[in-house]
Amino acid sequence: MTPTIVLVMPQMGENIGMAARAMGNFDFTDLRLVAPRDGWPNPNAVGAAADSPVLKNVQVFETLHAALHDQRYVYGTSVRQRHMQKAVMTPGSFVADAQVHQDVAVVFGGERAGLSNGDLSYCNAIIEIPTSDQLPSINLAQTVFAICYTWRGHMDAKVERPDSIDPPAAKNELQGLFDHLESALGVSGFFYPAHKKKVMAENIRHSLQRANFTTQEVRTWRGIVEALAKKPHIKRGCQSP
Amino acid sequence: MTPTIVLVMPQMGENIGMAARAMGNFDFTDLRLVAPRDGWPNPNAVGAAADSPVLKNVQVFETLHAALHDQRYVYGTSVRQRHMQKAVMTPGSFVADAQVHQDVAVVFGGERAGLSNGDLSYCNAIIEIPTSDQLPSINLAQTVFAICYTWRGHMDAKVERPDSIDPPAAKNELQGLFDHLESALGVSGFFYPAHKKKVMAENIRHSLQRANFTTQEVRTWRGIVEALAKKPHIKRGCQSP
Repeated sequence: MTPTIVLVMPQMGENIGMAARAMGNFDFTDLRLVAPRDGWPNPNAVGAAADSPVLKNVQVFETLHAALHDQRYVYGTSVRQRHMQKAVMTPGSFVADAQVHQDVAVVFGGERAGLSNGDLSYCNAIIEIPTSDQLPSINLAQTVFAICYTWRGHMDAKVERPDSIDPPAAKNELQGLFDHLESALGVSGFFYPAHKKKVMAENIRHSLQRANFTTQEVRTWRGIVEALAKKPHIKRGCQSP
Repeated sequence: MTPTIVLVMPQMGENIGMAARAMGNFDFTDLRLVAPRDGWPNPNAVGAAADSPVLKNVQVFETLHAALHDQRYVYGTSVRQRHMQKAVMTPGSFVADAQVHQDVAVVFGGERAGLSNGDLSYCNAIIEIPTSDQLPSINLAQTVFAICYTWRGHMDAKVERPDSIDPPAAKNELQGLFDHLESALGVSGFFYPAHKKKVMAENIRHSLQRANFTTQEVRTWRGIVEALAKKPHIKRGCQSP
């Protein structure tokens, strides 16, 4: 099963088409677009896709969160490490790492600025392609190519996936927890000052992504949030035994 | 030292520019064009190159032979194996193989049809990128990307180059031998019927490329051609001891 490819706010139809062609070259099938600048469908993409079968099944979403709703393990791509507490790996290491996960997605930022810190807060780990200091920025379609090409090249050296481990929750389950938590924190006055709310919420998502919760753990954590938000704390020492 | 990249009759300036960008991403420096369709310089290439320093030093040649004049070991790229008696390798194997050679060039065909059999007759070995049966054809700039990216990725696992082995001759020395040989064969009536001359000459070049002659061996072989062409055969048995 090849990973899902997600392009966040791609600008040039040509790059979307070339990405679709690169995916087709290496038997990738699932391409998702988040808010493409020029809408969808895009005739420039068709011209560049060289009849790639991937183009027929493109799905378009308004948000990255929506695009990832059914994915369980998400890698973000970045040319330069962001100094965050997430694993940063080469494409080769990504391929090995991804073998132990299900429903894997790889997320790519737009041509101008790549993935934002907010986008990366939806990712479990970061893939970084080592490049020249003189010209570090890789074309979007080339970056997609690098991932698909490397995936294909490494498929000979398969890693066994342990069946006994519960898979992580789907991203929409996790988002339900985030929404729940952020709402509860908003009510509680946690986000202060107000203009820092976005960054504070991102940092929370970052930290929880790393935990890689299972479905059951998400349920547990929603219960925890629910409990904390609804009930005032009761000093346990005061309860009768 | 990164390999020289040679594009034979490239059509789209955008692809030349993206190839130059991919080269810059991985510290490749030497880009050569053989008879680019739209001439040179090409504004579409500039737009796609994202200020790659490679673009400033592009050299343009009329023939592949001229573009390879100072190169000593040449790889051709091909999506599908051509059933010829040359080594066919993946990009990863190419990188390992190339470490034992000097003045290495990688040659790429145009967008429409790739390298001709005539082009491949100038090559020592073939690089083939494994692709999907559904969509085997890779975009030109993506193919250049694959080579440069793989080169960079494999540089950690260096192979020692033996100093004691003489390097192969430069390609213009080899071409001098070919020209000499073909001329001599033309005079001899070897190319019969005449319309098969091109294919026959290519087959000869193919076979000699594999021999990977040193400069001294080229000299020796020119002497052999010279000797064969000039002198009638003398039955050795008739010579006095």
